[in-house]
Amino acid sequence: MSVSTGPEATGGPESVFDWIDTRAEARAKAGLSRRVRPRPADSTDLDLASNDYLGLARDKRVTGAAAAAALRWGAGSTGSRLVTGSTELHTELEYELANFCGTQSALVFSSGYAANLGALTALSGPGTAIVADQHIHASLIDGTRLSKADVVVAGHCDVPQVAHALATRGKRRALVVTDSVFSVDGDLAPLAELAVACREHGSALVVDDAHGLGVVGEGGRGSVHAAGLAKAPDVVTTVTLSKSLGAQGGAVLGPSRVIKHLVDTARTFIFDTGLAPGSVAASLAALKILREEPDRPTRALDVAQDLAFRLREKGFKVSSPTAAVVSVQAPSPEAAFGWAEACRAQGVAVGCFRPPSVPDQISRLRLTARADLTEADVERAVRVISETGASAGAVSRPR
Amino acid sequence: MSVSTGPEATGGPESVFDWIDTRAEARAKAGLSRRVRPRPADSTDLDLASNDYLGLARDKRVTGAAAAAALRWGAGSTGSRLVTGSTELHTELEYELANFCGTQSALVFSSGYAANLGALTALSGPGTAIVADQHIHASLIDGTRLSKADVVVAGHCDVPQVAHALATRGKRRALVVTDSVFSVDGDLAPLAELAVACREHGSALVVDDAHGLGVVGEGGRGSVHAAGLAKAPDVVTTVTLSKSLGAQGGAVLGPSRVIKHLVDTARTFIFDTGLAPGSVAASLAALKILREEPDRPTRALDVAQDLAFRLREKGFKVSSPTAAVVSVQAPSPEAAFGWAEACRAQGVAVGCFRPPSVPDQISRLRLTARADLTEADVERAVRVISETGASAGAVSRPR
Repeated sequence: MSVSTGPEATGGPESVFDWIDTRAEARAKAGLSRRVRPRPADSTDLDLASNDYLGLARDKRVTGAAAAAALRWGAGSTGSRLVTGSTELHTELEYELANFCGTQSALVFSSGYAANLGALTALSGPGTAIVADQHIHASLIDGTRLSKADVVVAGHCDVPQVAHALATRGKRRALVVTDSVFSVDGDLAPLAELAVACREHGSALVVDDAHGLGVVGEGGRGSVHAAGLAKAPDVVTTVTLSKSLGAQGGAVLGPSRVIKHLVDTARTFIFDTGLAPGSVAASLAALKILREEPDRPTRALDVAQDLAFRLREKGFKVSSPTAAVVSVQAPSPEAAFGWAEACRAQGVAVGCFRPPSVPDQISRLRLTARADLTEADVERAVRVISETGASAGAVSRPR
Repeated sequence: MSVSTGPEATGGPESVFDWIDTRAEARAKAGLSRRVRPRPADSTDLDLASNDYLGLARDKRVTGAAAAAALRWGAGSTGSRLVTGSTELHTELEYELANFCGTQSALVFSSGYAANLGALTALSGPGTAIVADQHIHASLIDGTRLSKADVVVAGHCDVPQVAHALATRGKRRALVVTDSVFSVDGDLAPLAELAVACREHGSALVVDDAHGLGVVGEGGRGSVHAAGLAKAPDVVTTVTLSKSLGAQGGAVLGPSRVIKHLVDTARTFIFDTGLAPGSVAASLAALKILREEPDRPTRALDVAQDLAFRLREKGFKVSSPTAAVVSVQAPSPEAAFGWAEACRAQGVAVGCFRPPSVPDQISRLRLTARADLTEADVERAVRVISETGASAGAVSRPR
């Protein structure tokens, strides 16, 4: 069989994916190749990269609950939520999530990604206009792509532009879609103002609070609760169970009729296997800890602001954290990658966000604060990031 | 604030979701309302509804591995796969999956749904034609919707129609997309013939083997392995870890360059939290059991064929199982629902599939065989399903 090398090849089965090699070469040249870096169980790296904001993923109460549930309920949920994939644990978690966040109801999905796809597709359709912030998470973008709605992308946190899009829409129904805490820079959406604009124009508001739950608001009840919108009849919240709660999964929270509607129509709820019992139990244990230790969220936020302050003092271009995410700009994708590598080489794990994972094409280090970081941890982190950042050119060439 | 009732209401925030009530009423009238039925941990129901085909979800070796991993690695993976969400366990599972199924490489996703979305979007695009079987799973349909490709829907298992669509496509690149074992009726796609058509026309073949892995082929190596296509350079397989393997998650298997391409470009890989360590370890334990007990898959298939044979003898319209799924037609959505309820009332849990979860609009009971069902279990199941089916009118009015 003939083997050809260009993307035009149609010579034989070996050439069908030749176009992939061409793309890979282009990415390598642009410094955008990625690779999986598996971590060991006993890593001694200082973790400033995970989304485990409250340090609960390895808390013995959380891991113990996960282990006990696997033994008692099984390793998997065995089916889709409407067949055999709903256990009494799922119902308990849905009750506790709604209760903690102050909403009428909640529905658990296998991931935050699935929750966002399910919420956006089930709540829109051809008769709907979606007005989305330009920096929303990839899963919300995919939700808008699947929605069959008219989609308008509004400027980042630009409420007047959102209001204008709502006022001039060609569809009767409307959804405004935003992250609460934006995942890359950690900045906060103007939720209260957006809610006012939605009400003026008869629109619902869908808020992805993935990075808000557990960090923002009273006792970590999230950004929507903090904005006084948890019980609003026109606001729907999505969350993850895999960040502050240290587990896996996602959920949609909101008015009971919305939740019932998702049970009947959300494809990523109906056609996906239910969340594993271990992850459900871990999330329940984490919520219990949040109730018992309401100061944990404040500590995560304090650490983030401390990190940001100290790095800004060193001359870096740093975001102003409103939650646990701190973003530090790098002059190029290659510089960001080299910088993150240099940090890792010195035992500090940081996130490295490059195109296409950044909405503004600016590469950066993404640091995440955790409630269980000590003063010494923060000092060490600032020292390593500063020293390696100087070599990476991040101080002299800020964008 | 005024509260109105029709879908036209724009009176206030309470009315924004009024359209949901209208839809709910229409579904209720059509017998298409769904509800979550949480099960207890100690249910004594005979399970003919789950996808736990090998009876591994509650096998102590599998649940023990899940529990140990949660304690050792944490309740969650703490981040996306390219940041902190990849552990050495993930790498081990990817190696073992590829090794077991005979492919070059594998990549683990948080669900089979995510694996399908990731594979289809990363392997297509505006320059691609997708030719999809009309009965593919919802997650593959959503993948085609997200793909930006030209999408042609071919008749169910209609190879000449697939070949014609490939021959007359307006794009250079092409993907043929199919389930291996179709989830509703359990019938098998003509994989070998599809592969020939793909090769004649320079197309790749993407096969969702969710219901094949662990049941079909030598030792449960799946439908693609059974068709001799596991090492093909132009074939990509997706699987779930939540059915035969009793855990949670999904994976894409195929040529190494395809897997590397997914690491760089698959949005549901890059922007989703990694699979929880407990689910990864459970999948690994299940694969080990499959290697040690290669007759388990045969037993599941035997039980399915036995169930189908006996129910057909009773006068029901039953599918011919090629894997663990057995489908029994019902005369209407209401009849299917009532029939399934009557079975449950007698302690036999069966699946009830109604529109829109069925590709042909025919409602049915969906029974799943398990390798650990006894002769007495099968007898009891057949008796209960037959007796209740007579009342549901499923014998007298088969469609």
